[in-house]
Amino acid sequence: MKALVLTGRERFELAERELAVPGEHEVAVRVAAAAICRTDAKMWRSGHRDLVMPRVLGHEVCGTIDEAPGRLFAVWPGSACGSCSACRSGRENLCPEMRITGFHRDGGFAERLIAPRSSLVEVPKGVGATLAALAEPLACAIHGIKQSCARRADRVLIYGAGTLGILLAVAAINRGASVTMSDPDEAKLARSAGFRSRYAIDATTPDSRDRFDIVFNATSSAETLESGIRHLAPGGRFCLFSGLGSVPESPTTIFSELHYRELELVGSYGCTRQDMRDALSLFARYGHDLGFLLERTIRLDEAPAVMETVLAGTGFRQVIVES
Amino acid sequence: MKALVLTGRERFELAERELAVPGEHEVAVRVAAAAICRTDAKMWRSGHRDLVMPRVLGHEVCGTIDEAPGRLFAVWPGSACGSCSACRSGRENLCPEMRITGFHRDGGFAERLIAPRSSLVEVPKGVGATLAALAEPLACAIHGIKQSCARRADRVLIYGAGTLGILLAVAAINRGASVTMSDPDEAKLARSAGFRSRYAIDATTPDSRDRFDIVFNATSSAETLESGIRHLAPGGRFCLFSGLGSVPESPTTIFSELHYRELELVGSYGCTRQDMRDALSLFARYGHDLGFLLERTIRLDEAPAVMETVLAGTGFRQVIVES
Repeated sequence: MKALVLTGRERFELAERELAVPGEHEVAVRVAAAAICRTDAKMWRSGHRDLVMPRVLGHEVCGTIDEAPGRLFAVWPGSACGSCSACRSGRENLCPEMRITGFHRDGGFAERLIAPRSSLVEVPKGVGATLAALAEPLACAIHGIKQSCARRADRVLIYGAGTLGILLAVAAINRGASVTMSDPDEAKLARSAGFRSRYAIDATTPDSRDRFDIVFNATSSAETLESGIRHLAPGGRFCLFSGLGSVPESPTTIFSELHYRELELVGSYGCTRQDMRDALSLFARYGHDLGFLLERTIRLDEAPAVMETVLAGTGFRQVIVES
Repeated sequence: MKALVLTGRERFELAERELAVPGEHEVAVRVAAAAICRTDAKMWRSGHRDLVMPRVLGHEVCGTIDEAPGRLFAVWPGSACGSCSACRSGRENLCPEMRITGFHRDGGFAERLIAPRSSLVEVPKGVGATLAALAEPLACAIHGIKQSCARRADRVLIYGAGTLGILLAVAAINRGASVTMSDPDEAKLARSAGFRSRYAIDATTPDSRDRFDIVFNATSSAETLESGIRHLAPGGRFCLFSGLGSVPESPTTIFSELHYRELELVGSYGCTRQDMRDALSLFARYGHDLGFLLERTIRLDEAPAVMETVLAGTGFRQVIVES
């Protein structure tokens, strides 16, 4: 089978590979669509703590299996132990034994991949493969919304109007929250104008008096943590949805605001299988309005050439649909 | 009446003062006991953002009112607007109009004080005045426990074995949590040995592998935030019960741990009237084991002389019982 193998920094090789034999609890998935996440481009540029090369990247994947013709499955990219306290309490994304497809094991930038059978989540009728490939990022957004405890009528502010920002907005809207998005990139904001107007999502920059119940960062800028904390109403909640790529200027102010105004700062990382199921249900409901998130479909051999664009983060998802 | 007035930094004056006439919704309280909090000593040493001098300090107070002879009342030191969104949602401690007795208005280091009628909480029979004066700090501890969402069987770590650390332990034990206390001051720890052994509270320094569901700082050392975050189990919760007196060495590590391990950092500040009622119920239940928190009872004119000791933070509460 064909596979795009990352062999070193900025070095992809399109290789012909033997597919491994699936283990007892595994299955071979024929990839129907694999989306390229910005994390993939970052790994291509500079590696990653959890990445051992050579590696086939790709953790936003859907495909078919021989034994169930005509049915489509999204692949939860985790593989958890199932018996630790995190797993037993439904927080399998925090399993210390977690092995992530596309990081610790080969992912979907290939004709096929081997996945744990229990990681497949069936895609509902009416949701196409290219959109279903985005089940994982939507599941992460849904996970963030759950971590934030957002509920009906909450005022939610989302920093970053890229794919994840939009998916957070979808998950927040589905909970009945009122959403404002903020992004310094006007051109990028403009691309979601239709979607935002349909769901009454505000995109005016909040002024200093505006207060929100919940704030998300769908961008790694530390500045959004500091301004987000300022924009929280007393008792409000900031969800650290993205890790920070820089150091906040005044961490003391952040901790002081947390203490005196009883704010909450809560992390969100990855997603669970239940989040994946929830994501696919949301695509069945909102998918017809989310076509703009599919920037372009490409062939596997075109993927190396788009990494620079993906890394720039100016557009939405590029999806590999043909190998 | 006699009142101890803070007129400047490190300057108390024992004055003879006319008691103001209570307003429509106010009442004159004859002080039975007023405890000296470390915050009082800090204000004596270096002032406070919310303090305008001259001021009668004292926010841990109980007393009697002429119209209800034989009954004892603890004074909730807040005064909230009652109509803002914080007040309406039961978070009156976050009311932006909050005026705190002993900060914004005269407090209990006097023979009498004027308090809003609605701020009085009756002390149950069997709880003495000196202990009832600690209803406010216990209410703050209970508030912190609520903010932390501690529940049965949670492993709770408390940094600081002073009065507030002990009161946090009482509130955590009451929720069925299992408590560990940590304090570098062995001599201070020793003074709560009897109490701790009665309630199976561990005080061995946690080793690097020990993990807790919830951590509190009852000390302003920023180092306890960093080590507490390390000691949290995945998904665990750190309650910023005390503000930080210094800057953490590596805020980046804190934010990164919050994100990747889905930790929560939540502030706690002050208490509500409901917390005061809960505190007095707990004193009815645990009070007989908490006598050691009353370090010494003193006269009003002795208070200036103990400020240095209170500031050092080595002992428990000094309580003014006679003016």
